[in-house]
Amino acid sequence: MNISVLGTGVVGQTISGKLAQSGHKVMVGTRDVGRTLAHTEPGPYGLPAFSVWQKQYPGIRLGSFADSARYGELVINATNGAGSLEALTLASASNLNGKILIDISNPLDFSQGMPPTLSICNSDSLGEQIQRAFPELKVVKTLNTVTASLMVDPRQLADGEHHIFVSGNDAKAKAQVFSWLMSWFGWKHIIDLGDITTARGVEMYLPIWLRLWGALGTGVFNIQVVK
Amino acid sequence: MNISVLGTGVVGQTISGKLAQSGHKVMVGTRDVGRTLAHTEPGPYGLPAFSVWQKQYPGIRLGSFADSARYGELVINATNGAGSLEALTLASASNLNGKILIDISNPLDFSQGMPPTLSICNSDSLGEQIQRAFPELKVVKTLNTVTASLMVDPRQLADGEHHIFVSGNDAKAKAQVFSWLMSWFGWKHIIDLGDITTARGVEMYLPIWLRLWGALGTGVFNIQVVK
Repeated sequence: MNISVLGTGVVGQTISGKLAQSGHKVMVGTRDVGRTLAHTEPGPYGLPAFSVWQKQYPGIRLGSFADSARYGELVINATNGAGSLEALTLASASNLNGKILIDISNPLDFSQGMPPTLSICNSDSLGEQIQRAFPELKVVKTLNTVTASLMVDPRQLADGEHHIFVSGNDAKAKAQVFSWLMSWFGWKHIIDLGDITTARGVEMYLPIWLRLWGALGTGVFNIQVVK
Repeated sequence: MNISVLGTGVVGQTISGKLAQSGHKVMVGTRDVGRTLAHTEPGPYGLPAFSVWQKQYPGIRLGSFADSARYGELVINATNGAGSLEALTLASASNLNGKILIDISNPLDFSQGMPPTLSICNSDSLGEQIQRAFPELKVVKTLNTVTASLMVDPRQLADGEHHIFVSGNDAKAKAQVFSWLMSWFGWKHIIDLGDITTARGVEMYLPIWLRLWGALGTGVFNIQVVK
């Protein structure tokens, strides 16, 4: 399957790498290919520069947001939340319409220091904003509640006995995403929260996630819903 | 121990009943004692009227917010979030100062319909607003992330293998609350998230809690933090 992964950060690298290892053809999308490739220094938290990282994955291509979106039968939004709407606008509705978008982004606002606040919340969400901006796109919000390494390898933790969530308006698209999350990444427990307005819930979970990260001293944790 | 429980709704009834059963002396606080006692019809979700409910607990007294706060060596805020600051103002700083306040309230705003939004969030929280309004009160936010019956009986679910959180500025007060939560209610797993600003995290957890309630078809669930 040809997959578009928008974003070259830790989520984009982690998702792309895993998909490529599983035999998918991936084109990562970025704002400016030349600038992305020009960076060679590691980023925050030791994140390798894309150009360095890419050497491990010679099959992964890099293109503009538009090239990547055009290439993908599925599009994955792994850009940071502050830039997601602009990235998708650059990707262009004509390359997105009719496709499924797995939206992993979080609307984190670091402008007031740490911990970040949310740039959108409460009566709206980034997932909804994306769905409104691209009504022909089938937005499925998921995976934004766990750290990148867990997104693609949930069984590294408690043999996968913990949960993620999906939110979206299109039932078929959600069923398809369920199946991909299980078969590609090994997720065992996925809860359908409902339509895209339920993205508010998973995005507003970030503040407690950030505080748990502090309290637990690791980002490699998740929640199991017990009932 | 003399305990003040502010609020006559489901949380106030559940907490008060459990404390009374355990031999504590409880005075419930309300805005208007006469009006509270005059109601005899069940409220939403079949909640018994306070006057009917109180017959099961003849030892539980009812007083004004101020009477109750004066009476309690510990004060528990079980009012609904929209009225909490006013209730505490009526309780009066002079009756509260120096005491621990266990704050269970959630700033839910039902004015725009269901599901509710939050009246305070993101860069502030109700827990912080209470702490700022009453600087001499030792506010410990906890228990607001579970349904009332679980607050006082966590072991009804998965033998208590799930988590609650505490947020507060006073380390000794938090340690005391830890001990009460364990010995009074049977909580096994309590995570200290940090100072009172971490109340934002547990209050902003409500939107996903509400959606999980819908998806699971029960409010009797909780999260286990897996790491």
